[in-house]
Amino acid sequence: MVTKEQQHRYALILAGGRGTRFWPRSRKAHAKQVLDLTGAGPLIRLTLDRLLPLVPAQNVLVLTSGELRDAVRRLLPEVPAGRILAEPAGRNTAPAIGLAAKILLDRDPEAVMGVFPADHHIGRAAAFRRVASAAWREAARGRMVLLGVEPRRPDTGYGYIEFPKDALRPGSLKPAPVARFREKPDLATARRYLRSGNYLWNAGIFFWPAALYLERLRECLPGTHGRIASLPRFGSRRFSQALAEVFPQCDNISVDYAVLERTDGVLGFAAGDIGWSDLGSFEAVYELLEKDAAGNAARGELLALEARGNYVDAPGKLTALLGVEDLIVVDTADALLVAKRSEAQRVGEIVKALEARGLRGLL
Amino acid sequence: MVTKEQQHRYALILAGGRGTRFWPRSRKAHAKQVLDLTGAGPLIRLTLDRLLPLVPAQNVLVLTSGELRDAVRRLLPEVPAGRILAEPAGRNTAPAIGLAAKILLDRDPEAVMGVFPADHHIGRAAAFRRVASAAWREAARGRMVLLGVEPRRPDTGYGYIEFPKDALRPGSLKPAPVARFREKPDLATARRYLRSGNYLWNAGIFFWPAALYLERLRECLPGTHGRIASLPRFGSRRFSQALAEVFPQCDNISVDYAVLERTDGVLGFAAGDIGWSDLGSFEAVYELLEKDAAGNAARGELLALEARGNYVDAPGKLTALLGVEDLIVVDTADALLVAKRSEAQRVGEIVKALEARGLRGLL
Repeated sequence: MVTKEQQHRYALILAGGRGTRFWPRSRKAHAKQVLDLTGAGPLIRLTLDRLLPLVPAQNVLVLTSGELRDAVRRLLPEVPAGRILAEPAGRNTAPAIGLAAKILLDRDPEAVMGVFPADHHIGRAAAFRRVASAAWREAARGRMVLLGVEPRRPDTGYGYIEFPKDALRPGSLKPAPVARFREKPDLATARRYLRSGNYLWNAGIFFWPAALYLERLRECLPGTHGRIASLPRFGSRRFSQALAEVFPQCDNISVDYAVLERTDGVLGFAAGDIGWSDLGSFEAVYELLEKDAAGNAARGELLALEARGNYVDAPGKLTALLGVEDLIVVDTADALLVAKRSEAQRVGEIVKALEARGLRGLL
Repeated sequence: MVTKEQQHRYALILAGGRGTRFWPRSRKAHAKQVLDLTGAGPLIRLTLDRLLPLVPAQNVLVLTSGELRDAVRRLLPEVPAGRILAEPAGRNTAPAIGLAAKILLDRDPEAVMGVFPADHHIGRAAAFRRVASAAWREAARGRMVLLGVEPRRPDTGYGYIEFPKDALRPGSLKPAPVARFREKPDLATARRYLRSGNYLWNAGIFFWPAALYLERLRECLPGTHGRIASLPRFGSRRFSQALAEVFPQCDNISVDYAVLERTDGVLGFAAGDIGWSDLGSFEAVYELLEKDAAGNAARGELLALEARGNYVDAPGKLTALLGVEDLIVVDTADALLVAKRSEAQRVGEIVKALEARGLRGLL
């Protein structure tokens, strides 16, 4: 039986990123979200699979890039092709969610949307669905809700969300009021956050009524709101043309920064152990993979002689490692990466260097 | 004008090895001697080019393996195909040189043969030819002659040749009597050799009358000599069949150990600066190649970010290195090697491991 609350659930999958930190596996037309980085399947396909028990496929909307749209449509055949849209330009999450809210409202004024990055890993899907359902129910009561993850290490690459002392009950399915958003901290600060127990990592997963989001967008980013509100009804003949004209003029800004940090009364759920990783780099993927006794993780056949802690992604060939440690080795038909695992965050710099050299074929 | 001495010159190119330390670039059917490791051309082709000003192509004999014979014939079209022979089995240098001596004597009883490894690098060909000519002339007087290389470092991987104190005059084109052969020394001994100035590296380059070699073989390895002497005349119908029966029964032993160490009156030439390297490993090749400011040597396009001292052989693709040092990276269609440069001598162990796993397609 489908409850009234469930009827109005919609999922927005945000699939616009490039994931240059996964070069050379990721390319403009094969970005991170369509890659099978963990061996379980393409990340965006896993994202949809996690959601389908909660949301019918017709209630899913995907925003991606022009380069990726066809690949995403092939990977998500259940989702109506017209609901897998290319953003005319990348404008970060605040305008993208605004656009989605407008599209959903054209169909259902009571739409309650969940927002999900297409390229994260969630190892325990059932646990994720329990807390996502609770968050959706809370959002249906007219609240802005987010799902945060308990920090496991003093990571300086994430945004943190502060809660009142002792307010968090991880995995309890009870929300707590957000006290404050904290941008990426330095290491000492991140350590303090970790010790205090009052902080969650911002996982970029949100729930709210579409109408409420547009209202907040009008207050926080009136220009962007006006441009999105000016669009004709979704599905009308003029929609695509108008979108191509209007969207690139929207502010290029994240929902966290533009809207959430300026909104009182946001609620947060502590996800508990859902096995979340943002898969931010090859290092994060390495951490998830099964390893041999020497800590080597490999896709493709591996022969390791006195080699430890290496991540190898070279399908279709044998890779022999001799005396090397803590490397990332990624082989493709036209490009090969050999990097220190500790430098995994910097792989995107290679893409910038290739762009500077005009090597477009490798991007 | 060709002198009488030059008329009887013959060159034997020994091309039977596998060069497993160059895997995955080297394979059974593409062994080290047919590879272009330095960018100047296939090593065996360069070996012939060095010799052609001294010896006509019809006077060249090549011994190789069955797997390599066709490749060698394609690389050395000037050498009559019938003079590029496959050994029925690898039996090291003493029997191979004996077989060659027998073949040459069938044609020319006054043959004076030079013996040359197919897979060494000699950067200064003209200087090499000056000393090789002198050695050939000396051999034509009925002597066993070798060409040694002045040690540049206390290498423990080479054989050393001792000479009487102050007898060596490097590059002087005057020979000195060999005092003694010394097998691969330990490091302290190698250092002593280097300091004394009385030692040369054994480069595996020899000159002698073919008849004299067979005489010495009869005394040192009578069984092997008897088998080779039993072969029918080279070029006769029954030769190949008889060779296939007889050769595998020969002793498996080097000319140094079986013959030279037991022969008095061997003469040695100190080669002087001929730019010799045995190219014993990727490390030796790396030392020869041009490098960028950070010491990276690459075949194929390279993008190096904070990467130093790496050897990359990945033609046809771009290799990006990030934060890595002193690595060997060799990419082929079906196999990829990533090794520490300091472990270059051990690459052959990978080939042994592949054999143990039954991965014949990669050998």
